[in-house]
Order: sequence, then C-alpha cells, then structure tokens
Amino acid sequence: MQDSEHIIICENPSINDVIAKLNEAFNERRTTIIVGSCRVDYHGRASSKLEYGERIVIIKEDGSVLVHRSKGYEPVNWQPSGCVLQALKDNDELIIKATKRNPSETVTIFFDRVYLLSIFKLIDEGKFSLYASEEDMQRAILIEPTLIEEGFKPIDYERKVEPGFIDIYGVDKNGRMVVVEIKRRTANKEAVLQLAKYVEYLRKDLSREVRGILAAPDISREANHLLLSLKLEFRRVDPKKCFKILKKNRVRKITDFFK
Amino acid sequence: MQDSEHIIICENPSINDVIAKLNEAFNERRTTIIVGSCRVDYHGRASSKLEYGERIVIIKEDGSVLVHRSKGYEPVNWQPSGCVLQALKDNDELIIKATKRNPSETVTIFFDRVYLLSIFKLIDEGKFSLYASEEDMQRAILIEPTLIEEGFKPIDYERKVEPGFIDIYGVDKNGRMVVVEIKRRTANKEAVLQLAKYVEYLRKDLSREVRGILAAPDISREANHLLLSLKLEFRRVDPKKCFKILKKNRVRKITDFFK
Repeated sequence: MQDSEHIIICENPSINDVIAKLNEAFNERRTTIIVGSCRVDYHGRASSKLEYGERIVIIKEDGSVLVHRSKGYEPVNWQPSGCVLQALKDNDELIIKATKRNPSETVTIFFDRVYLLSIFKLIDEGKFSLYASEEDMQRAILIEPTLIEEGFKPIDYERKVEPGFIDIYGVDKNGRMVVVEIKRRTANKEAVLQLAKYVEYLRKDLSREVRGILAAPDISREANHLLLSLKLEFRRVDPKKCFKILKKNRVRKITDFFK
Repeated sequence: MQDSEHIIICENPSINDVIAKLNEAFNERRTTIIVGSCRVDYHGRASSKLEYGERIVIIKEDGSVLVHRSKGYEPVNWQPSGCVLQALKDNDELIIKATKRNPSETVTIFFDRVYLLSIFKLIDEGKFSLYASEEDMQRAILIEPTLIEEGFKPIDYERKVEPGFIDIYGVDKNGRMVVVEIKRRTANKEAVLQLAKYVEYLRKDLSREVRGILAAPDISREANHLLLSLKLEFRRVDPKKCFKILKKNRVRKITDFFK
C-alpha cells in the first residue's frame, strides 16, 4: 500500500519545482510521470528529432525512459533501463537527459510547459504467467523439434486414432516412435491418462515400442507420480520460448518500434 | 496549450468517481493515466495472468492500452489502437475492459486501489524525423540494392580512390558502372560536388561511362539544381525503411515484447 508521503502529485508546477523534485526522484530511484509540452532529440547509432507537442513521459525506477504520444501503443522515443538521468534548466525550459553507454545513446527531452508531475515508489511483486495456446505450442514444436529433445523428428500432427487426436507424433534419434501430448497449462492426471491411452493404442496397433511425452509448462506432483509409474515422460515447454520461435518465423509481420 | 478544463487530476479518488470519469473520457476520446494497485488478465490467441501490484495504466485517445510495471521499457500488457473500452464496478473493484475483434483479444484490468487518475486532451502535431547513420544506410543498401534501383548490383564499398572513399559502387542492369554517395540527412551542394569528384575521377581512370547516384532522405532545391546540371541522379532513401531492412536481417537479436 502506498504511504501518502511516497506519492507526489503536482498540477501545473513551476519548472524550478519540477527540476528539484525530479533530481530527488532520480536519486531515490522513484518512478515518475510527466505530462506536458515537449520536444525530443535522440542521438546514438542513428538520430531523430520530434517537434513540440503534448505528451506523456515515464521515467522508471530502473532508469528506463518512455515518451508516449496520444496515439499508438508504441513509444515515439525510449531508452532501456540503466540510463544516467539528469534534470536541468536552460532558457526557461526543463531539460531531461537520459544517457546510455555502450553503445552511447542519449535521449534529451525539452519541456516548455508541465501540466502534471507525479512521483511514486511503486511496489510490484506480482507474478506474470503467460500461457500459449495449444496450437501455438504445437506449431513451435513443429518448427523447433528440439523443444521436445535433440534428434526428435515430427512426422505428423492432429493425427486421428481410435481414442482421439494425437497432437504430434514422430521418431526419436534411435528411430523409436514418440507420441507428444501438449497442454498449455500445468498438466494434471487427466492429461497423463489421455497420453497413456494414445501410447497404449499405438503399441497394440503397431506392435512396436512407443514413447509418450507430455509437453507442458509444468506438471502437478500427483500427475508426475502417475506419469512415472506409467513409464511416460514429461518435457517442460516454456510458452515464452514458443512465442519467440513463432515470432522468429513470422518476421515480416513484426512491426518493431523505432527510436 | 491545455485549457485547464481539459485536464482532470484526482488524487486517491473513489472507485465510483473513477468509473464515472473514465467512461466520460472513453466517450470523448481523451487520454487517461491511472496509477494504482491492479491485476491483469489477457485472453486471446494465448492468455496471461498478472498478479496484484502497483502499476501505471495508460489508455490513449485511439483506444490503445498499456500496462507498465516500475521496471523495464516494455509494457507487461498492452492492446493496440481501436479497442472497445469499458469501465465498471464489481466487488468494490474498478474493472477496465479493452476488447479487440479479429483476432478476438481482451485485456481486463482489476484495480482495488487508485492513487492517481488523470485525464487529458493532448494536442500533438509535432513531426517525427528519423535519421539513420550513414553506416546503417550503407548496410541496408548492400542487403537490399533495390533501394537504389531495380537491377543494381553492388560490387564493393568504402573503396579508396584518389579523392576519398566511395560509399558503394556497383553496376546497373545494363552493366554500366554506378557510384553511390550516401548522406543521412538532406543532401546539400557539398554532397553533390563530392559525388561529382568520384564520378569524374572514375570516368577518367576507367575510360568508361559512370553513373553517379546521391542517396539521401532528401535533397535541397539548390543541390538538386546542381545535381541535374552535372547529369547526376538522386535517390530518396527512407531511413525508416533502412531500419526495417536491418531489423529483418538481425532477427535473433530482436527481443520483442510479449502480451
């Protein structure tokens, strides 16, 4: 919970007031939001100029900086974390410099008017969990079969068999058949039993050795116990990694944001 | 300049007050900043959950939404422009829903405490100009020679000749020699004269036809006049396009942000 002394909110503050409060905030590693009329210069590997306009500037406690216009989800200028920050006055303007080394890059923001200055100490320990869709995970595994294991070669997917649809099947590096069952969240006992059914069916049908692999971000203790007793296997598949693989293979659709 | 009635700033507002003001702001397409304690659900192609923490939420006039934690330049959740926005109350919490169709995606933000609500009508007509480094432009042209023209084949770059270094030289689709001089900003008369020197030198040295092309984001009127009189050519090379080409060819280094 925010202690009221940890929040500073100033409406239409003077430039001198903003400079004093900002430098204190930079020292104490607080997160700052400034709304006002500004222009922005960027110099680094390339360079850019943004003319005056009313914008939102966020400076975070880790020294990352964002300049947002009133449209679009991408910042028009930004600096990654670890910037050296400085607020100063020149020609009645507030100047904020955010400098990075290696490579050397500077974003300089010139405010001629500030409507809102707010400073916070934000407490945020909240865990972020990302779940891919099963289809995303399936496509990622087909593109990058090493997500399952070195030498795994997918043969087919969504293959209809008597008890249902097999997500992916293929062969391992020793030529043994492998059935993969994909779950997008923590796998439970039902997922294990589903995989066991497919493996059992194929073993009977093909009269050959069949390995069963459950691919999921995690597995419950109970499910893992059952899995081991059925001589099936678990492979942790990270949804973030799946997204990265899909993105890498969809380059032309990626619209990255520019400095 | 902001009219004072166009700015609303509320410190520690009640949830009811926030809901009323937010729905009005959504109707009037204003830009909103909310700082408080919230959790976030995302459902779409994939899904994600973010536990409670103190964060900054920006909702822009075009219906784009950003949720920022106190660290990192990337938002933890976001929606592109064009969202349908809705603020409502449930279990004493403020709920903001941002929904997109095609593909169907919803970001839902649950606030149990709001420290700051601020609403603006931001006026921003400022032009953004991006200048690539000459090295960036050179690399982009080597990767994608059609930036100069269809059929252009680069042979070498940074080639030392008597009067200096030639940025890129190659042959056109008819086998004629082409010298390319690159400028990262609006090309002036000096740039034209520099190109003319190289072309002159090579024509004498090789006793063959040599075309000279000045590649830059823009050219001054004066420089263009001189260029035409010297029978040299200008090619507009857009720095944003150069960045896109470089990014496309540096995929593995791109760390995109995730929903």
